[in-house]
Amino acid sequence: MGAYAELIAYQRETEALGQVAGRLSWDQETMMPRGAAAQRAEESAAMQGVLHARRSDPRIADWLAAAEAELAQEDTVARAQLREIRRGYERTLKVPAALAMALARETALAQGIWAEARAEEDVARFLPALSEVLRLRREEGAALAGAGGDAYDALLQDYEPEATAAELAAMFGAMRPRLVALRDKVQGAGEVPGLSGAFDTALQLELSRELALAFGYDLNRGRIDRAVHPFSSGSGADVRITTRTDPSDPFNCLYSTIHEVGHACYEQAVDPDFGLSALGRGVSMGVHESQSRIYENQLGRSRAFCGWLYGRMREKFGDFGVADEEAFFRVVNRLGRGYIRTEADEVQYNLHVLLRFDLERALVAGDLLPGDLEAAWNDRFQRDFGYAVPKPSQGVLQDVHWSVGLFGYFPTYSLGNLYAGCLHAALRRDLPDLDADLARGDPSRATGWLREKVQRHGALYGPREVIERACGAAPSEAPLLEYLEEKFTPFAG
Amino acid sequence: MGAYAELIAYQRETEALGQVAGRLSWDQETMMPRGAAAQRAEESAAMQGVLHARRSDPRIADWLAAAEAELAQEDTVARAQLREIRRGYERTLKVPAALAMALARETALAQGIWAEARAEEDVARFLPALSEVLRLRREEGAALAGAGGDAYDALLQDYEPEATAAELAAMFGAMRPRLVALRDKVQGAGEVPGLSGAFDTALQLELSRELALAFGYDLNRGRIDRAVHPFSSGSGADVRITTRTDPSDPFNCLYSTIHEVGHACYEQAVDPDFGLSALGRGVSMGVHESQSRIYENQLGRSRAFCGWLYGRMREKFGDFGVADEEAFFRVVNRLGRGYIRTEADEVQYNLHVLLRFDLERALVAGDLLPGDLEAAWNDRFQRDFGYAVPKPSQGVLQDVHWSVGLFGYFPTYSLGNLYAGCLHAALRRDLPDLDADLARGDPSRATGWLREKVQRHGALYGPREVIERACGAAPSEAPLLEYLEEKFTPFAG
Repeated sequence: MGAYAELIAYQRETEALGQVAGRLSWDQETMMPRGAAAQRAEESAAMQGVLHARRSDPRIADWLAAAEAELAQEDTVARAQLREIRRGYERTLKVPAALAMALARETALAQGIWAEARAEEDVARFLPALSEVLRLRREEGAALAGAGGDAYDALLQDYEPEATAAELAAMFGAMRPRLVALRDKVQGAGEVPGLSGAFDTALQLELSRELALAFGYDLNRGRIDRAVHPFSSGSGADVRITTRTDPSDPFNCLYSTIHEVGHACYEQAVDPDFGLSALGRGVSMGVHESQSRIYENQLGRSRAFCGWLYGRMREKFGDFGVADEEAFFRVVNRLGRGYIRTEADEVQYNLHVLLRFDLERALVAGDLLPGDLEAAWNDRFQRDFGYAVPKPSQGVLQDVHWSVGLFGYFPTYSLGNLYAGCLHAALRRDLPDLDADLARGDPSRATGWLREKVQRHGALYGPREVIERACGAAPSEAPLLEYLEEKFTPFAG
Repeated sequence: MGAYAELIAYQRETEALGQVAGRLSWDQETMMPRGAAAQRAEESAAMQGVLHARRSDPRIADWLAAAEAELAQEDTVARAQLREIRRGYERTLKVPAALAMALARETALAQGIWAEARAEEDVARFLPALSEVLRLRREEGAALAGAGGDAYDALLQDYEPEATAAELAAMFGAMRPRLVALRDKVQGAGEVPGLSGAFDTALQLELSRELALAFGYDLNRGRIDRAVHPFSSGSGADVRITTRTDPSDPFNCLYSTIHEVGHACYEQAVDPDFGLSALGRGVSMGVHESQSRIYENQLGRSRAFCGWLYGRMREKFGDFGVADEEAFFRVVNRLGRGYIRTEADEVQYNLHVLLRFDLERALVAGDLLPGDLEAAWNDRFQRDFGYAVPKPSQGVLQDVHWSVGLFGYFPTYSLGNLYAGCLHAALRRDLPDLDADLARGDPSRATGWLREKVQRHGALYGPREVIERACGAAPSEAPLLEYLEEKFTPFAG
């Protein structure tokens, strides 16, 4: 067996173990008994220890060197495998095993503490755990960045290879004034009321399952459960999603589901030849989020699809007090005065993300201390949105991310929106009559286009490259802003 | 840090990874999407590879030697830790890693094939997988036994250290004629009809949950799900059980639950100081089964407890056509003409086990080929029970065990019954007024006695020793037979 084949066989086992670690996280958020948290932290740490040892095995360096020499330059797939394996190897070498294990242990514990603190509206209870997780991640960021490097960029690149905070900040800076202007214009025209009344949660789950299937989710290789925080988990033949239900807000369940289905379909669509390899998953969180957001928004919240969904919801829930398809479209896309990122409309969503992006950069830089985070959040929210956060669960405690150490992750949400804008423009050029499908509740040609252009490639191409190949142009914020302005300006009357 | 402390810290991580592997099996039987089977086989194999490497790490030999020298002879707990670690280490060394991984992979696949073959009543479909699993286990048994050793005994001792097939066969041989005589006498008095009608499965699950709590299962460190084959899984702070429901037979759900709760309570009751150590689990499958069986039978099917359960079932399901407590007790303990081991009454249960014990010894010895297994099963069943197996799901395909490689496991069921007989005699001597509690639906003094005498010790003492310490006498089949004859002879009229 040549060096390349040996390396791929070795990587296959590592990937399989990575899937096991992922399944353990899924279990923790869906199935694990409450009293198992401390033991689970040990289990997760032990798994991270195993993965760290495998990913930093010195044989990898030898295999890589030999394989790089033995492979032809034009063998694109093999070259990409080596690129991804080398990236993972070099990353792992920079982080001591003890730190990787401590992070696994502390984040497993902190997640439970966050959930309790959130339920009890008690920020102080969360602070020691947050401080410890932040301390460890700052240490990790410094180790990854090396001398003279930027710790935040290093963390960001775990989720978005090639990206830098400065470049993202520039793109987001260009988006911000146009988003604020659009928001103010639409909100100035008066508030559209949301839904009222109660929506049976079992029926919500039934309908969300129907939507999941319509958007192409393969339940033979997946499953849907409930969790506090909707997420997608796993790759290849076992890609699971979660959703949540709120009796007064069926859109929470339905659109969370479509969103996670976007993530899950990406993982399920990756070329099976890449299964349990370094290419066998979505290439970055930004590209991942582009899939979830285009499923959820550009497709799921389109006028055409809303027309179909209105009829389906009337069949399911009876008359829920919305007069017609047009009114329903306005309700689905209303610009409310909300606090929660995951429930935000398309215009304000990125404002929520930018707030987090700025705060977490300050945390990682050491310019903001965890003890001052709540006040900083509340101040910034008041400035950005014009009204005050009423309680921590609607403010600084709303997201699970920081508890599990996800610093550098939030900006990939806005980057994903930006990519979704690019992809949507290209998709509409290629499928000009798509609305006729969507009006029948059938997004399959659109999801097929995304599967072909983006999803099947897994990590074969870099994040920017896969978007550029799909769209025929370098990614920019322009298509997203044009789409949003075209969709929402009419709401300003 | 001394050698002992280093070894314990190392073992702690290994135990944590063992828990992860166990959780993966639980997931496979409860949550895993069908289409994930092939990928899961790779994941399980990779986990077994990791565990094998850790358990055969040459440092363990050095730590063991140094720790054995440094520890005082009277340090019972530490000595027991070393004994168990050494046992695991020496076992692992005998089995090549490739074989351990192949077994994990093939059993993960065979389990799915068994489930399909069982659903389709198609033995032929299961045969290739069974042959492969048997081949690998025979190879493993030979490796474990070494030259001149007995492969079946070696496999048996994975589940029941110290036991040999010859010794078990002798004890079971002594039980058999008295069981058959008792069975024939009771059945000769005429058949007691079972329940008729339908029992809402949601209500069954509610009641089974109530029973689980009454028998001491801590749901804060566990959970109950449904699976094809009820089982208990995990140790310490995360011990999960499964149950199943049959609308026409609520006893299936209720007594499966009590049975698995017996297993789970054992794991949950182990001294927390032994958590994630080699002592932190039940000491053998025989002792494990003694707990599940005494919960299920000697307590759960006692006249006193049945009296309480009758009232509770009337409250839950209304009038289900059984006139009074005494009639209910007879229905719960009826000696039907059944095919299914897990649904068998206390008298015939061991006859089901002895059939499997003899067949699997022949399979492992090579005296019986998988292709002849169904015929051998059906012949033997006809001889032992006097009527014919109507279809494979009620015969050779009824149990999951062989598909997952559990050869040498079945006899621990009968050994567990034998141990349960010993424990029950001692329990009744210590708590002569126990029936008053059971008649109120409260087995807590009995489960407390078992916790104190058996469960909390985990693997501190060997299997025979823990039973002997609890009962004050060496284990024998006599107490079980006396209990059964006392309970069932009156049914012969």
